[in-house]
Amino acid sequence: MTFPAPLTGVVPPVCTPLTPDREVDVPSLLRLVDHLVGAGVDALFVLGSTSEVAYLRDAQRRLVVEAVTERVGGRLPVLAGVVDMTTPRVLDHVAAVTAAGADAVVVTAPFYARTHPAEIARHFRLVAAASPVPVIAYDIPVAVHTKLPADVVLDLAAEGVLAGLKDSSGDLAAFREIVTGARTRPDITGFSVLTGSELLVDAALALGADGAVPGLANVDPDGYVRLDRLCRAGDLERARAEQERLCALFGLVSVGDPARMGGGSSALGAFKAALHLRGVIDCPATADPQIPLSPQEVQRVGEYLAAAGLL
Amino acid sequence: MTFPAPLTGVVPPVCTPLTPDREVDVPSLLRLVDHLVGAGVDALFVLGSTSEVAYLRDAQRRLVVEAVTERVGGRLPVLAGVVDMTTPRVLDHVAAVTAAGADAVVVTAPFYARTHPAEIARHFRLVAAASPVPVIAYDIPVAVHTKLPADVVLDLAAEGVLAGLKDSSGDLAAFREIVTGARTRPDITGFSVLTGSELLVDAALALGADGAVPGLANVDPDGYVRLDRLCRAGDLERARAEQERLCALFGLVSVGDPARMGGGSSALGAFKAALHLRGVIDCPATADPQIPLSPQEVQRVGEYLAAAGLL
Amino acid sequence: MTFPAPLTGVVPPVCTPLTPDREVDVPSLLRLVDHLVGAGVDALFVLGSTSEVAYLRDAQRRLVVEAVTERVGGRLPVLAGVVDMTTPRVLDHVAAVTAAGADAVVVTAPFYARTHPAEIARHFRLVAAASPVPVIAYDIPVAVHTKLPADVVLDLAAEGVLAGLKDSSGDLAAFREIVTGARTRPDITGFSVLTGSELLVDAALALGADGAVPGLANVDPDGYVRLDRLCRAGDLERARAEQERLCALFGLVSVGDPARMGGGSSALGAFKAALHLRGVIDCPATADPQIPLSPQEVQRVGEYLAAAGLL
Amino acid sequence: MTFPAPLTGVVPPVCTPLTPDREVDVPSLLRLVDHLVGAGVDALFVLGSTSEVAYLRDAQRRLVVEAVTERVGGRLPVLAGVVDMTTPRVLDHVAAVTAAGADAVVVTAPFYARTHPAEIARHFRLVAAASPVPVIAYDIPVAVHTKLPADVVLDLAAEGVLAGLKDSSGDLAAFREIVTGARTRPDITGFSVLTGSELLVDAALALGADGAVPGLANVDPDGYVRLDRLCRAGDLERARAEQERLCALFGLVSVGDPARMGGGSSALGAFKAALHLRGVIDCPATADPQIPLSPQEVQRVGEYLAAAGLL
Repeated sequence: MTFPAPLTGVVPPVCTPLTPDREVDVPSLLRLVDHLVGAGVDALFVLGSTSEVAYLRDAQRRLVVEAVTERVGGRLPVLAGVVDMTTPRVLDHVAAVTAAGADAVVVTAPFYARTHPAEIARHFRLVAAASPVPVIAYDIPVAVHTKLPADVVLDLAAEGVLAGLKDSSGDLAAFREIVTGARTRPDITGFSVLTGSELLVDAALALGADGAVPGLANVDPDGYVRLDRLCRAGDLERARAEQERLCALFGLVSVGDPARMGGGSSALGAFKAALHLRGVIDCPATADPQIPLSPQEVQRVGEYLAAAGLL
Repeated sequence: MTFPAPLTGVVPPVCTPLTPDREVDVPSLLRLVDHLVGAGVDALFVLGSTSEVAYLRDAQRRLVVEAVTERVGGRLPVLAGVVDMTTPRVLDHVAAVTAAGADAVVVTAPFYARTHPAEIARHFRLVAAASPVPVIAYDIPVAVHTKLPADVVLDLAAEGVLAGLKDSSGDLAAFREIVTGARTRPDITGFSVLTGSELLVDAALALGADGAVPGLANVDPDGYVRLDRLCRAGDLERARAEQERLCALFGLVSVGDPARMGGGSSALGAFKAALHLRGVIDCPATADPQIPLSPQEVQRVGEYLAAAGLL
Repeated sequence: MTFPAPLTGVVPPVCTPLTPDREVDVPSLLRLVDHLVGAGVDALFVLGSTSEVAYLRDAQRRLVVEAVTERVGGRLPVLAGVVDMTTPRVLDHVAAVTAAGADAVVVTAPFYARTHPAEIARHFRLVAAASPVPVIAYDIPVAVHTKLPADVVLDLAAEGVLAGLKDSSGDLAAFREIVTGARTRPDITGFSVLTGSELLVDAALALGADGAVPGLANVDPDGYVRLDRLCRAGDLERARAEQERLCALFGLVSVGDPARMGGGSSALGAFKAALHLRGVIDCPATADPQIPLSPQEVQRVGEYLAAAGLL
Repeated sequence: MTFPAPLTGVVPPVCTPLTPDREVDVPSLLRLVDHLVGAGVDALFVLGSTSEVAYLRDAQRRLVVEAVTERVGGRLPVLAGVVDMTTPRVLDHVAAVTAAGADAVVVTAPFYARTHPAEIARHFRLVAAASPVPVIAYDIPVAVHTKLPADVVLDLAAEGVLAGLKDSSGDLAAFREIVTGARTRPDITGFSVLTGSELLVDAALALGADGAVPGLANVDPDGYVRLDRLCRAGDLERARAEQERLCALFGLVSVGDPARMGGGSSALGAFKAALHLRGVIDCPATADPQIPLSPQEVQRVGEYLAAAGLL
């Protein structure tokens, strides 16, 4: 399919359901795709952080892209993460996911290796030169431990290296600089600026963002689609109420006991527990070495769902 | 070969020479192996940070292990890094490097994903359970952004999960806690505590460490072997002089202009430039997206070599 | 005066003009106060980070509060920072600034000493117990290196310990949690939630904040008052345009060469240069050991002012 | 007294005993001074981090210096910390502590304000220019969140700005660079390089340091004096045994429950509890807002003392 320029709307980062022995549960994954597409989302993002991309073996990654692109069948764009440490390894993933049908690739700054901003820019240029599909930058300092500077992103947009940005930095002021720059610089067209926040979608759209990539949209895609439409219609009062309902629901990411498990395991475990409780996926297992939620913690996930009217 | 318990002495993390088009330069790699083995080092560590492991594609990693283990032919232990984000991906590397002949695997804490100390411990247990060879923990907070707690390392040593530690944390006080614990805890035997520092080998050995894994040993393996032997002989005055000569030589890692390139690129570029100037490898190229040293910066590497009596 | 509950609107953190020999320039300070009050701001905050509080001797701090409160004469509330490392030292500042006429005190978490969240909460309770005026929490992780947790702030609000929050954390999602909590928790009334951002005032007010404490309001108080009034009137299109004009003006904080001086020195130097160029203060000097802007950098400040229609 | 150039040996950072109502307990402080001087220490450092300098009001700081310098009566040098955020405030402390009799001042990099290395160097130059006594740099990144670069320290030593360094950075490799530079640069003489570590005194002295400033020396000054003398005598085996005994004793800093209190409160509380148990001070109270140790935690301090032969 032709990739939209710019991509807009709600783009869920799709969870990767696993079987009890930690293989990709394809039937559950396809039900999740239907659940999201049926809610009216605008595109799908597989192999992101919410998809446990860091935990998936190469063969599992390939299987996910193949299964999802086949199911979607061109109705929506499918973006695929190509998360790895440096350029040569990322390029291998680009080849794999585009062979499997991805419509765009989502690329972080290098990690593990420590790189200079000039090397980060070079990384994106090299990836874009070798990619048959558009490249979306993925700014996620909590994972890669560098922040993409706004001027670097804008210059790469102007060069045609980047087709968009997924911003998971939490820094809305820097995000605004990119949004405003993308709108006002005459050398930039069709660049998509997407927030990765669950909690500030209304604010991001109000200052000019093109869309959102909220992990919580796995659990409540209807809510985020509704929020997006209310914002676009200018109905700010109802938009804020919908956003605040979703903020309350987002509390489920903290059910895991921080003395016992990581915040990432808690959030990913809660998303999957919610999908399991809602009947979308068969098994809430997360990948190794993550600690699973306890039955009591899963029960609290259920309480969040009930409070949000989702059970 | 039977893996020594504990492993002791000088264990260079072997650089990975590349061709101008960034493929593994096997003839240069074999000359580098001969250069190191000929100097009397005690083991080799391939696919570590100094080997640019973060930049090597899977096929390149495999080729490195095969080439080195074949050349060594069992005369020395060959340790191989299995650096990747989480347990499932690390396990694929364990399978690959042990099939290629590695005598031990070197494993970091998970990265990109944020994990809890309990999940880090679980990671090492799962890797050890699936590995046919001993597991060495690799503590490198600058790359993975967590520090392995001393008590976790010691408990995993006592359980038989870990056969050793390579400490690149720069925290000699925490290192000492592990050295002392490994010597005094009755439930720990044969555990190898290795410093990754170039600059504190004499100090680490003095407080009881088993050996060192210094990247600079690529450039001057004779110096580190001499230093190790002087320390073991108790000739502390000459040991300190040798260590200080090596500290001065280590200044070459900073030749790269920090306004233009990262510290990692500068250090790796300088090691390779030095090996090229010394006639060991054919091409000083580093992997993408690293910025290469300028001719002036390479000339400064040569000055460091000359000052250290190596040219 | 009776302190408003909640305090709302535009609350500039007032710069502290200095003479060439680094004493407080009281006549310039009073002109600055008139400049701000004349623009219609809602309160003044002296001895904040923008006031160079960290650089002012105790006698200078006292002089600032005395001069400003006398000039204001009860027309507006005057908040005073009591920035110091720990409780006992902060209490001495509370005594000094309230004796000098401050209507509220603004208190950070402890710094230099590393403290636990329970100790941070205890700090605020002890300060509030001894303060004759309301206590506003000042969340500024870039200076104190801890972030005030949202639940701690809300609980202290409910206890009556805190009358408000100035949030300079840059984390709008956490800020929203406090805004929403302050509005919805039945045990909290009259709590003022203020953003310290220059760049997100429209967004902060849209999600329910009470006001803003933007350092750039020294330079363009009319702009921030206009922005505040447009937001309150629901004229979001013109509000966003005004905010974007102020975002562009804020670029002046980066005129200082980062190879030569700190970001703080650049921003404070630029604010003072702008006030000097606008004729408000006599001398743009900043306190020691800050490096001053060069003439070329000052000229660039003038270009920002001209572009914003302020010269 | 004439300040030694270089200062060498054991320099305890003296705890500040408090009364139950948090005033300086002068009789206990004087007993502590006698306890340290009687053990043969080489100098005293008051108003350091271990002295709770961050918690002491200005009047309390002055009282400490007056009481200690009077008791010492010139038998040993007394160094005094002048810990505050920036140059002007530090200069007020310099005036106060030198009026009260301090023989040298100990100065950190600026904090709270974020400064550039050039501004840090300027800070030390301005302080030294105004100080009637020698200036010792205090490198304590955990408190001030910047690391003093080795080359800056050495250049300031060569200029005569600095008379010494207390290194509490934990980075022994950078420390070594300063030690070696101070010994080998012809433009540096009489510069004292002191480690702030409790755990690596033997290693620091072996690589050429002049002495140590260990907080634990409050609890066991005899141990550190013995360790210093063994190292200087070249009796490395017994030195290492003594150091390891002190490392084990240092475990007492972790008795406080990290779920309930900060690491600093635990360490300072444990030092004071130990001094109380050993009969040196009357009251183990720490300053606000620190959480005190529980009776069970104090009992564990006693067990550490007993194990070290100190009860």
